[in-house]
Amino acid sequence: MAQTLRFGMVIGIRPEKLDEYQALHADDHPGVRDLLAAAHMRNFSIYLQQFPDGKHYLFGYFEYDGDDYDADMARLAAEPRNQQWLATCGPMQIPFPGEPTWQQMQRVYYQA
Amino acid sequence: MAQTLRFGMVIGIRPEKLDEYQALHADDHPGVRDLLAAAHMRNFSIYLQQFPDGKHYLFGYFEYDGDDYDADMARLAAEPRNQQWLATCGPMQIPFPGEPTWQQMQRVYYQA
Repeated sequence: MAQTLRFGMVIGIRPEKLDEYQALHADDHPGVRDLLAAAHMRNFSIYLQQFPDGKHYLFGYFEYDGDDYDADMARLAAEPRNQQWLATCGPMQIPFPGEPTWQQMQRVYYQA
Repeated sequence: MAQTLRFGMVIGIRPEKLDEYQALHADDHPGVRDLLAAAHMRNFSIYLQQFPDGKHYLFGYFEYDGDDYDADMARLAAEPRNQQWLATCGPMQIPFPGEPTWQQMQRVYYQA
């Protein structure tokens, strides 16, 4: 198995969509968990925080333990059920300027 | 072993301290990695992101796999070398209003 890759990402969330977003991501909602697992995405957490300016942001962290990240992401992106999921969640989010979706962040520290 | 706990947290960082902060957290800098490991903190990542308003934020994710989180955190907080580390890094950071240090975030999604 290839070395585990780790990703941190951030995106804004519309305050009027917070309840719906959380319901869609609750532990008892299947969502696209099976598709993400099939794409070798694991240990995936999303955190919510209201910032001092009043805006809400989501922070995502996940690990990839497959052998071909680009191929797995391409296969995931082509899945109709994933496209439907993104069509549901996408309009709830507020991407960073110039970003179509989650903003990938720069890692500055890691300790195993 | 108790169930693994997962934490997501966020804090601002002074732009003029970014280089120094990153040097202190580089892979080849020992920092307090040994103390964090002794406190059963593992898989610890910190990510950096400049936000649309120009401010910089750090996003931290770590796991705790010990048996007594409060006791381990109290022991860590009492370590003189950890106190020295916090005295170095603390002034580089900009906590959220009313928070002394990192803001703990609310988890809204988890997939193993």
